[in-house]
Amino acid sequence: MESRLVYMDHAATTPVHPKVLEAMMPYFNQEYGNPNSVHSLGRSAREAVDRARETVAQILNCQSQEIVFTSCGTESINLAIKGIAKARGKTGHIITSAIEHHAVLHTIEQLEREGYTATILPVSPDGLVDPDDVRNAIRPDTVVISIGYANNEIGTIQPIREIGSIAREAGIPFHTDAVQAAGSLSLNVEELQVDALSLSGHKFNAPKGVGILYIRSGIPLEPQMQGGGQESGRRSGTENVPYIVGIAEALRLAQENLEAHNEHCISLREKLFEGILSELPDTRVNGHRTQRLPNNAHVAFRGIEAQSILMGLDLKGICASSGSACHSASIEPSHVLKAIGVPSEYIYGSVRLTVGIDNSQEDVSYVLEVLPSLVRRLQSLSPLVESAS
Amino acid sequence: MESRLVYMDHAATTPVHPKVLEAMMPYFNQEYGNPNSVHSLGRSAREAVDRARETVAQILNCQSQEIVFTSCGTESINLAIKGIAKARGKTGHIITSAIEHHAVLHTIEQLEREGYTATILPVSPDGLVDPDDVRNAIRPDTVVISIGYANNEIGTIQPIREIGSIAREAGIPFHTDAVQAAGSLSLNVEELQVDALSLSGHKFNAPKGVGILYIRSGIPLEPQMQGGGQESGRRSGTENVPYIVGIAEALRLAQENLEAHNEHCISLREKLFEGILSELPDTRVNGHRTQRLPNNAHVAFRGIEAQSILMGLDLKGICASSGSACHSASIEPSHVLKAIGVPSEYIYGSVRLTVGIDNSQEDVSYVLEVLPSLVRRLQSLSPLVESAS
Repeated sequence: MESRLVYMDHAATTPVHPKVLEAMMPYFNQEYGNPNSVHSLGRSAREAVDRARETVAQILNCQSQEIVFTSCGTESINLAIKGIAKARGKTGHIITSAIEHHAVLHTIEQLEREGYTATILPVSPDGLVDPDDVRNAIRPDTVVISIGYANNEIGTIQPIREIGSIAREAGIPFHTDAVQAAGSLSLNVEELQVDALSLSGHKFNAPKGVGILYIRSGIPLEPQMQGGGQESGRRSGTENVPYIVGIAEALRLAQENLEAHNEHCISLREKLFEGILSELPDTRVNGHRTQRLPNNAHVAFRGIEAQSILMGLDLKGICASSGSACHSASIEPSHVLKAIGVPSEYIYGSVRLTVGIDNSQEDVSYVLEVLPSLVRRLQSLSPLVESAS
Repeated sequence: MESRLVYMDHAATTPVHPKVLEAMMPYFNQEYGNPNSVHSLGRSAREAVDRARETVAQILNCQSQEIVFTSCGTESINLAIKGIAKARGKTGHIITSAIEHHAVLHTIEQLEREGYTATILPVSPDGLVDPDDVRNAIRPDTVVISIGYANNEIGTIQPIREIGSIAREAGIPFHTDAVQAAGSLSLNVEELQVDALSLSGHKFNAPKGVGILYIRSGIPLEPQMQGGGQESGRRSGTENVPYIVGIAEALRLAQENLEAHNEHCISLREKLFEGILSELPDTRVNGHRTQRLPNNAHVAFRGIEAQSILMGLDLKGICASSGSACHSASIEPSHVLKAIGVPSEYIYGSVRLTVGIDNSQEDVSYVLEVLPSLVRRLQSLSPLVESAS
């Protein structure tokens, strides 16, 4: 049992799929040309990038020239929000929600320092944005709306179509951070009525270090890096050919297997929820109980600290987190948990278990062997908890 | 002969070294943790990133916290120039040269649109920046100086130490685009007296899609992307662990084998120059004849067009370019060739051959079989050339 490793942190990152790795391999030292070179090696690299762009465009139901390859989700989000805002003018108003990823919130804070203003919408205790709040926040000078598709911590899925329809009616570009959604939800940009959508490869079994930005034709976008003018001038820098091939293959696999993935993950997640809640009835579920990502089980234990739980799990070979990986080192409860109003005796004891296709029913059984007794032990030591078995 | 491939475009990009690929492989789907996760898989990814940073720091003779991993040379350069300029104020004066890569020049043009001013220094016909010109251009409001270490097109190596010493005396941060230098020249930042230095992995046998920025402690740097605060807040976005491991290994290999690489490349380059110039005496060498990158042979043929030469070479399996790969699709002569004053009857017929450790003497012999007769044939068809054999 000691060497067992159960990875339940798929929202933080995922392993590269063997088929993705296989697709990438020729581009490291066989088809290694620079796609901007006109000779044969350059042309075959260019063709690989073109094919990848076409694959992504088909999945997103858009034109291939509406796809920009970037170096990560964070870059996609920065490029979308700053790029749209700055193309509309030197000032303006931005609408977002209180539970966005820091890549969204900190980007908007940077724009505020530069003279833009922002409305940060509250969310319900389930973590839902109310589309009416979006409608009411729109001002004549609103330049962009950015609401995440599914929350990276608590997994709540937003009513993106409704928000998209409101934005479209008002004629305001609507960006969605879909980084957590790619492996579980439809990315059809026409159905979603989004104008910009950000993806990050390593959340769906492509490598870390590659992202996608969908940007609708006709939405002006100011590039955030200057140079050789790659990606039709929207993202300079020599194209990362292997990863671009990889992210397209990973997206294809993820979207092809969406149903099986979701069914599998929901079954594991529900087993986790049931096991935990039946063993520890005073545990809370963070986020919407059903309108949530299939793979996300986020629970809050009373009166104890997440760091101790995670350390105890880690000693048993279980990889979990307290929320965003980017925030792991912090003791401070996340802005997401604060925004949904998790009570103080629960907020420090919140743990996120995110399952994947590589997890088994046995993995869940193992977690259910370890976690409840660990939590009870910690609660028995906690001055904040009255009674524990 | 038909299937022979001779790659002489190493300034555009290089194949990934087998040892680099080997070093990267475990991080795709074995040690695939997010370095920001606190569990065991996260910690081992973090250790890999730390080790890579330490390796790079040793080679550059700096502290590991002075190293920022980025997604490419273009990002490093954008971050350096914008990051330093914006940290010093909303306006200011920038000094650069007329032959910088577009990642430098277009970044500075963007800053000019935002209210900064710039002095673009001329260069000698050999492509050299005069350090006295740098000294004379310094103004009280100068915020950053950016001069490339070695030119990406013509290979001329600049007197970086002298410029560094002038910048230091004046107390102005000095950035150098060292993207072309990493495989051939010392990167010791103390000896070079630089405050910021940009590198791109794929120029020295790491993959496309990873770069390095050295930024001296104490030089304020405004991050250009907001998010999870990775790279000590200077570059948000989940770390590309495989490529970070890869670029460190590639830099180690490149710098370890500098002497052998340079000796090999100079021998091939000189054979190219001699063969071409003896067969076609009215050919010009672009760039400084000796103070140039060991692997760069840039020649200008009279009265013909580079595109026709490159197409002819490509048909024979020889990969070469007319200059920057980023500029390949353009018919317009490059800004570098204009800046060094290549005469009009030569400027359109400029071809860059950049050799690498994987090229052999036989490769050069093959190019010398193909190229001179090709040029003569084209010149015989050209209305601009009087006589040809």
